Amino acid sequence: MYDLLKGLRVVEGSAFVAAPTCGLYLAQMGAEVIRFDNIGGGPDFRRWPLAENGASLYWEGLNKGKKSIALDLSNPAGREIAQRLATAPGRDAGLFVTNFPVDGFLAYDRLKALREDLICVRVMGWADGSQGMDYTINAALGLPQMTGPADDARPVNHVLAAWDLLTGAYCAFGLVSALLARMRDGRGREIRCPLSDVGAATMANLGFTAETLLGGHQRPRMGNDIFGAFGRDFTTRDGQTLMLLAITPKQWSKALEVLGLAAAVAALEAELGVSFAADEGLRFTHRARLYPLFERAFAGRAAAELAPAFDAGGVTWGAYQPLEAALEDPRLYKDNPAFQAIRHPSGLSYPAPGAMATIPQEARGDVRPAPRLGEHTDQVLAEVLSLSATEIGRLHDAGVVAGADGR
Amino acid sequence: MYDLLKGLRVVEGSAFVAAPTCGLYLAQMGAEVIRFDNIGGGPDFRRWPLAENGASLYWEGLNKGKKSIALDLSNPAGREIAQRLATAPGRDAGLFVTNFPVDGFLAYDRLKALREDLICVRVMGWADGSQGMDYTINAALGLPQMTGPADDARPVNHVLAAWDLLTGAYCAFGLVSALLARMRDGRGREIRCPLSDVGAATMANLGFTAETLLGGHQRPRMGNDIFGAFGRDFTTRDGQTLMLLAITPKQWSKALEVLGLAAAVAALEAELGVSFAADEGLRFTHRARLYPLFERAFAGRAAAELAPAFDAGGVTWGAYQPLEAALEDPRLYKDNPAFQAIRHPSGLSYPAPGAMATIPQEARGDVRPAPRLGEHTDQVLAEVLSLSATEIGRLHDAGVVAGADGR
Repeated sequence: MYDLLKGLRVVEGSAFVAAPTCGLYLAQMGAEVIRFDNIGGGPDFRRWPLAENGASLYWEGLNKGKKSIALDLSNPAGREIAQRLATAPGRDAGLFVTNFPVDGFLAYDRLKALREDLICVRVMGWADGSQGMDYTINAALGLPQMTGPADDARPVNHVLAAWDLLTGAYCAFGLVSALLARMRDGRGREIRCPLSDVGAATMANLGFTAETLLGGHQRPRMGNDIFGAFGRDFTTRDGQTLMLLAITPKQWSKALEVLGLAAAVAALEAELGVSFAADEGLRFTHRARLYPLFERAFAGRAAAELAPAFDAGGVTWGAYQPLEAALEDPRLYKDNPAFQAIRHPSGLSYPAPGAMATIPQEARGDVRPAPRLGEHTDQVLAEVLSLSATEIGRLHDAGVVAGADGR
Repeated sequence: MYDLLKGLRVVEGSAFVAAPTCGLYLAQMGAEVIRFDNIGGGPDFRRWPLAENGASLYWEGLNKGKKSIALDLSNPAGREIAQRLATAPGRDAGLFVTNFPVDGFLAYDRLKALREDLICVRVMGWADGSQGMDYTINAALGLPQMTGPADDARPVNHVLAAWDLLTGAYCAFGLVSALLARMRDGRGREIRCPLSDVGAATMANLGFTAETLLGGHQRPRMGNDIFGAFGRDFTTRDGQTLMLLAITPKQWSKALEVLGLAAAVAALEAELGVSFAADEGLRFTHRARLYPLFERAFAGRAAAELAPAFDAGGVTWGAYQPLEAALEDPRLYKDNPAFQAIRHPSGLSYPAPGAMATIPQEARGDVRPAPRLGEHTDQVLAEVLSLSATEIGRLHDAGVVAGADGR
């Protein structure tokens, strides 16, 4: 972790991917992030993948470096504690991240009555408050029909929950931005981040919507072809699949050089009366003529022969590899200084990352594991709500709170 | 736009998706974002999709609300202007977003010599500085082999550049976090965000890497099945494809109720000796038994019949629709208050979004179009670098800078 956000206290009431990653990014940059959960865990506490003992590898991945307090959220007293935590005093507190419903007991107006300058970042499904999750929003945006081989009409969902992830990072940006504004004007704000708006806006930011408005229909599916430039997967003599792409003139000329295609492509340019170097769009338009040249060039060489030549020539390429191979890849995992092997709540030890950014001027602090559920219940009640040991004991006795692993 | 970041001045020297979206998010939250480009445009200035007149719908989508200055970056005098812009004085300036190479004329140490407390957020491909783009990093992480129907072994690239997008939002978060730290300690920092680390860390945060370490191989491809819970696409009697998912017990029971499957599923539970309501993982384990029940239930009903029943029952579902249908969807585009029809540099008028978040306490300011290339050249040189009209005229005469559309 780094300490850019040292001194901030963020309270998180969340599940699934978007809101927990928001809290994760804040914690990895030095904020104190206190997560409250139902006793026994929220709806994502047992989500797959699981360790052999049933612990969720997903949950312990998304909640690294946070503190955990377990509350009975079906009990009004438990709900009140959640409200008081979110709105506890402190100049660098009053920062709440959640995906709880917009109109429930954690509605902004209710919390604002307890702390006027509260900043609340709220992940939502649809902007109108109705249920939506990454996969349903994605289906509504047309992407699954644009994805996959052109010879197959079945919609293809993404495996990586891209809308959740983008929303989580944007929420972290929104929270710190609202804090900067509050430091200036003293005002609290609710920052609502619906997946539906994140999705709709992004499709517009990238030009997909304007393209569809102009053409009348969305981009057709075209397998792994890079739209509007040159790029695709190709197979080598020894059956390896490599991704090659060329957007800039330099990327294009380097690829031709290493593959020995300069003369063949020049001949094609002469035949067609075009210059592929000057216009990446022409490479896309004429890709059906270009692909066979590249397919033959790849089919004639082994991956082990191409890789060093591509690297030496500065070609933009990459091998397709399964995640088990990535784990042995020194640039991704094996020698990556952003990772550190630590012991997790599942009892397993394995490498885990800190912040996704690197600050060369500063040392990376230790990667911290996720808490056990309820591990910090007593500490948080004492430190944040100033409850006495007697009061905390009463809450345990009444079943309103629970300590580590339900004790 | 909103004004959370009012008063900040950010300089952007960037191309492609990640760094431009970082600047876009900052601009839409009220920062002044000045983008410098090569005269005639950088490597992404003509990127597809294009308007009929050749203007890039992609470029004008990613650069909304920014100012533009055009420089000859092959000329040392143009490079010096870029350096001076990035490091210009001002308490709320000295904020630079880029994807230029880590060791070139915009290297952090060179810029730091001009402004000691500079904050530089740098998008990179691989963390070691070598070339990597979204599609090559994605191939290296195993996702394309996990994506798509189980009966097809071909790798499937994502169409949405998820790593670029996540990196862009994380960079915006990194920049405001570093500003908060600088306000506290007066120190500048370089925040390096390599796509490779964003990808590697995210696969770990979501539990993919731990799963692979434990099992020895990555998750197999399984079409549109939601891993570890219940969810998939189903086809209605009238041939519509709908996404249905159930992670929480409530989502599960609602879906069974509306589809009239409670009895059939109870019989299956009795046969197998399990409770699907209590454990979403069991729904996944036994999905081959559950799917036929759902397929029959969907095949017996029309989409128009299911949609209101799903909505009334609070089921988590969504229709697959092409983007042209999404544009008519009131919740996504047609009546979305985050969008506003404006005139763009292409000369076309079409709806474009402001910030992806909504702040109910504040009015949404107008959505601002992207600049014409070089539209603010003279203004930026005068305001930020305090150059006189004579000096600016000399730079034009020498071809070091250019005004709107190359004039």
